[in-house]
Amino acid sequence: MSDPLVIFTPSGKRGRFPAGTPILQAARSLGVDLDSVCGGRGICSKCQITPSFGEFPKHKVTVEPDALSPWNAVEERYKSKRNLIDGRRLGCQAKVLRDVVIDVPPESQVHKQVVRKRVEARDIVMNPAIKLYYVEVQEPDMHEPSGDLERLIAALREQWELEDIRADLHVLQSLQPILRKGGWKVTCAVHIGDKDEPTQVMHIWPGFFEGSIYGMAVDLGSTTIAAHLCDLQTGKVIASNGIMNPQIRFGEDLMSRVSYSMMNSGGAKEMTDAVREGMNALFTQVSAEAEIDKNMIMDVVFVCNPVMHHLLLGIDPFELGQAPFALATSDALNMSALELDLDIHPLGQAYLLPCIAGHVGADAAAVALSESPNTSEDLVLLVDVGTNAEIILGNKDRVLACSSPTGPAFEGAQISSGQRAAPGAIERVEIDMVTKEPRFRAIGSEIWSDEPGFDTVIKDTGVTGICGSGIIEMVAEMRIAGILDGPGLIGSPEQTGSPRCFLDGRTYSYEVWDASETGGPKITVTNRDIREIQMAKAALYSGARLLMDKLDVDTVDRIVLAGAFGAHISPKHAMVLGMIPDCPLDKVTSAGNAAGTGARIALLNTDARRDIEQVVQQIDKIETAIEPRFQEHFVNASNIPNSVEKFPILETVITLPDLNFNLGHGDKNKGRRRRRAR
Amino acid sequence: MSDPLVIFTPSGKRGRFPAGTPILQAARSLGVDLDSVCGGRGICSKCQITPSFGEFPKHKVTVEPDALSPWNAVEERYKSKRNLIDGRRLGCQAKVLRDVVIDVPPESQVHKQVVRKRVEARDIVMNPAIKLYYVEVQEPDMHEPSGDLERLIAALREQWELEDIRADLHVLQSLQPILRKGGWKVTCAVHIGDKDEPTQVMHIWPGFFEGSIYGMAVDLGSTTIAAHLCDLQTGKVIASNGIMNPQIRFGEDLMSRVSYSMMNSGGAKEMTDAVREGMNALFTQVSAEAEIDKNMIMDVVFVCNPVMHHLLLGIDPFELGQAPFALATSDALNMSALELDLDIHPLGQAYLLPCIAGHVGADAAAVALSESPNTSEDLVLLVDVGTNAEIILGNKDRVLACSSPTGPAFEGAQISSGQRAAPGAIERVEIDMVTKEPRFRAIGSEIWSDEPGFDTVIKDTGVTGICGSGIIEMVAEMRIAGILDGPGLIGSPEQTGSPRCFLDGRTYSYEVWDASETGGPKITVTNRDIREIQMAKAALYSGARLLMDKLDVDTVDRIVLAGAFGAHISPKHAMVLGMIPDCPLDKVTSAGNAAGTGARIALLNTDARRDIEQVVQQIDKIETAIEPRFQEHFVNASNIPNSVEKFPILETVITLPDLNFNLGHGDKNKGRRRRRAR
Repeated sequence: MSDPLVIFTPSGKRGRFPAGTPILQAARSLGVDLDSVCGGRGICSKCQITPSFGEFPKHKVTVEPDALSPWNAVEERYKSKRNLIDGRRLGCQAKVLRDVVIDVPPESQVHKQVVRKRVEARDIVMNPAIKLYYVEVQEPDMHEPSGDLERLIAALREQWELEDIRADLHVLQSLQPILRKGGWKVTCAVHIGDKDEPTQVMHIWPGFFEGSIYGMAVDLGSTTIAAHLCDLQTGKVIASNGIMNPQIRFGEDLMSRVSYSMMNSGGAKEMTDAVREGMNALFTQVSAEAEIDKNMIMDVVFVCNPVMHHLLLGIDPFELGQAPFALATSDALNMSALELDLDIHPLGQAYLLPCIAGHVGADAAAVALSESPNTSEDLVLLVDVGTNAEIILGNKDRVLACSSPTGPAFEGAQISSGQRAAPGAIERVEIDMVTKEPRFRAIGSEIWSDEPGFDTVIKDTGVTGICGSGIIEMVAEMRIAGILDGPGLIGSPEQTGSPRCFLDGRTYSYEVWDASETGGPKITVTNRDIREIQMAKAALYSGARLLMDKLDVDTVDRIVLAGAFGAHISPKHAMVLGMIPDCPLDKVTSAGNAAGTGARIALLNTDARRDIEQVVQQIDKIETAIEPRFQEHFVNASNIPNSVEKFPILETVITLPDLNFNLGHGDKNKGRRRRRAR
Repeated sequence: MSDPLVIFTPSGKRGRFPAGTPILQAARSLGVDLDSVCGGRGICSKCQITPSFGEFPKHKVTVEPDALSPWNAVEERYKSKRNLIDGRRLGCQAKVLRDVVIDVPPESQVHKQVVRKRVEARDIVMNPAIKLYYVEVQEPDMHEPSGDLERLIAALREQWELEDIRADLHVLQSLQPILRKGGWKVTCAVHIGDKDEPTQVMHIWPGFFEGSIYGMAVDLGSTTIAAHLCDLQTGKVIASNGIMNPQIRFGEDLMSRVSYSMMNSGGAKEMTDAVREGMNALFTQVSAEAEIDKNMIMDVVFVCNPVMHHLLLGIDPFELGQAPFALATSDALNMSALELDLDIHPLGQAYLLPCIAGHVGADAAAVALSESPNTSEDLVLLVDVGTNAEIILGNKDRVLACSSPTGPAFEGAQISSGQRAAPGAIERVEIDMVTKEPRFRAIGSEIWSDEPGFDTVIKDTGVTGICGSGIIEMVAEMRIAGILDGPGLIGSPEQTGSPRCFLDGRTYSYEVWDASETGGPKITVTNRDIREIQMAKAALYSGARLLMDKLDVDTVDRIVLAGAFGAHISPKHAMVLGMIPDCPLDKVTSAGNAAGTGARIALLNTDARRDIEQVVQQIDKIETAIEPRFQEHFVNASNIPNSVEKFPILETVITLPDLNFNLGHGDKNKGRRRRRAR
């Protein structure tokens, strides 16, 4: 009679094993992904499995009730202690006796999948850099006088197949008492090395360690720093939070920070200190929220733009401020968290994603990691809009990237009534085609400005300004309603038929809201605001267009808007404005904070780090500054489109009025030029 | 016609090369060991060679005067600037035109040999962990936006075949300005990694770096710390110095320091801090003597016993104080010097040789590295005498090691008139066979005590005591002169015929020197002193004998006495005393500070590190504490041999009188035992 058959689901892997073989052992010999931290010693309860009984025609097998060894005392203990669900067994305790079908539930897999919310996004497969291993270490023997560390390393090699392990002094200093306290049984946190890093024991606990270890995924932006604390065993986000980047006091945008460093000796160091201090404050805050010991944070992944990348590392960003925009280093970096002054586990690790180019940073690499354009069948355009827009275009055949200097207008800066996205900021706008009257919604309220209750809702904050996504809608709606012409001039009350247009210096402005009677602001859109938006959108569009030229295409299959800002942009208005190339509206999606997601993926899966390092090598980097076609596109793209023909693929046909207010009222300079030309 | 023939001496390597090939290039393609830091750019002048002209019947070649391209301007510049010796050419400038014989002088070899003074010692072949490389780096290019570091690494790979290089943040932070200052030509100090360390750029200088980089070989003893500053390019010792180990204030010997750590919470840390501070003070002192910048010390190698090893590393030596004497770690260690608080180059490296066993440390491994018993045809016994004696026995077939608890008697401690080796200490002794009168010599003077002028010579210091080597000679001479019997009792004036013997409590003592009239010391040898020496020498002999048993031999071919103490021991007296096994006197040599030499070898040649790591793995470790035969030998070895038969191989036959003073005057305990036995 042949040995009993063991069939694992969902993998479908199967094999015959002598009666009495533990399920965990069968799983291992078949390469079935069944977790265990204690190595099958009935301690960790990670190897939970669900046996199925009855007829399985698909597998041509019948599983009898006595197919496994009886429920035992170890399992009984975990049943009460750790809520072993009914029907579950421990894989290391249950032994195969007769043919059986064994289901490995998702949480029992080593390479667990962490589900992402967006349907189109791939799940994250768990494979963190730091893992826990329980080992039993041989006691010292005067006949074979090897060191305690060497016997620990031998145990890790023999029991877990970990090779070329070393231990830092910190570990060595506590090793001997811990080994003895644990009775030569210890749990190790091991950092699995790659080519340029050794595999390293990071921490040792006596006996079996019941707790968890953590990692932090950090999106280090020019304006905000967001940190996501993740459990390195389950992959779950335990807590997230963000703070303003403390470097803001040295300059709102990146170039002003580069300038600060150029103008002030030691300026770069001041900014490095500021961002590192801010980071530590944020880590303290997030750890406190999660009620975990900050010392149990063992791994940190950073994504950031090149200037933040250099400032985090303590490298003067001087060279990034001038052609040829040379990065000090572009490859991914592994380092000790201590080198970044991070107050986490003393042997904490830090990983920075690679930079793509001098203007296309690790944040763009993280977006690429999250959205994987390099595996896409469709031609996808990824746009992460900030002070610089990072633009990635490609599919499985080829990926290109560039950045485009959009300036801070999309973040509400340099706009007369602009402000950051915060309660009270106008974020949604509609302008009536007939009355030219605006209605809007402000952040913090779902009620539109012409709906009942709006007054009470905004009482707390008032209407304070217009945020980035609001200004895009505002300008687009002004164009649709005929308040704005194609070249970007606001018309007079006579030209537009709207009393909200008023002469403001030499050009016209459009009044959106006036709370000055009650001490509130007067919110207007000036012609200068329009210019800023035109410049920004032209830069963005030209970058995308340049990449499309390189691939010799006129349309893209889909557009993904990344970043906090991207999540709030109305695709319709963006397209009316000419920010992004034409694309079916339902193919324009938001990826949310894709850079942050990329950081989280890299934190939870080291294979993903190797992947993105490879992908970044293969991306064609386009430097807009030296591409003559970028300038050409830029000049052509500053106009706001003049007619409906530009939007054949918008779901609703929008007719833009054919206007040119310039004939009546030129701005000062245009007037001058015209006079000279005569 | 065939291409010109190039023959290199002394290697004898030869090959034909197209006319116009630079000699350096020919050397490289033949694998001839010709140095170059600048890679053949005529900058470093390291590739000096000497062409030979005329008939070479041995090589069957005639070298014409025009065999090489003419002396050129680059060579002319170095002739004046760096003393290019007459007849020398630069290998990168001189091009082969016709058949030629080229001598590579020793100083032009990459793997230079550093000559050791002792004829039997192998020279040290240069192959340090840190080397200098001059490279020309590609300038940044916006079309290929790689980082400056990545282009530097590419240059090191392409121009020097260095693979998998990384750079620390310190280097990255200064990289961009240095590359630009050097016009994209820089010199790098590169730490060549091994399996558990990456290859790492440690320092960058703009242009070609004219200076040198340094390493420190440290022999960290319980009593003294000796440091040898070496030039990592030439291998020369630039300066050496030593200080007392500041840990002495926590205990003279190792076990008292272990006790201090057991009795005082934080005691281990205090001792760690003390030794590290002492080390830094020593480094400062040695660097000042050599007039070099301490920051240019980039590599440090340590040898030390296990307790010092643990205390240096900040590991509590608690476990070393009790069976099974478990080391926290036994393997060799690579670490950052910063982890040891060493104030040298910020990226300085540190290497600790492996420990052999709980009582046989990295200092013993260093002795093995210096003396290489594992390659010896003869059976060699290496003895490093200290508070513990490390004993190594073996040849190319097998090597064994043990340590033996000799106690501090050989260092002059626990001897009534004992003292450390210092001016005024008796170091040489002879006792007249007839008169039983001693004559001696003290450290600091070549004049014997019975010679004219002795009084004036010792006026400065006086005779202050007896040092370790002096006490050995003293006891042996007392035995030869019949003042001492075989079991170790000093006789009465009647028994010995010497009025210098006097009753001192219940046993007799022997008066060596009495300066009490002038306020000086009275120097005597007491029966208790004899007991201490008997214990010490029995421990030493028993250890050696135990290893001989393991190899099943009764004699050894040669004996090497290592350590400062070993250098001063009189082999004859040591053999009379029965400290060391019988061996022809001319086969007993002193290796001087072999541990320090081992440290220097490991500093200058990383292959030697790998070698000793291998050798230590293969050494059979014998723990005396659990070997019953050690106790047997110890009991038998406490007697001082009783007759001439014990020394058949001494060059001068020494007849020891057959004496047993015990019959007349037993010590208190022996008397008691005898009474009980009745």
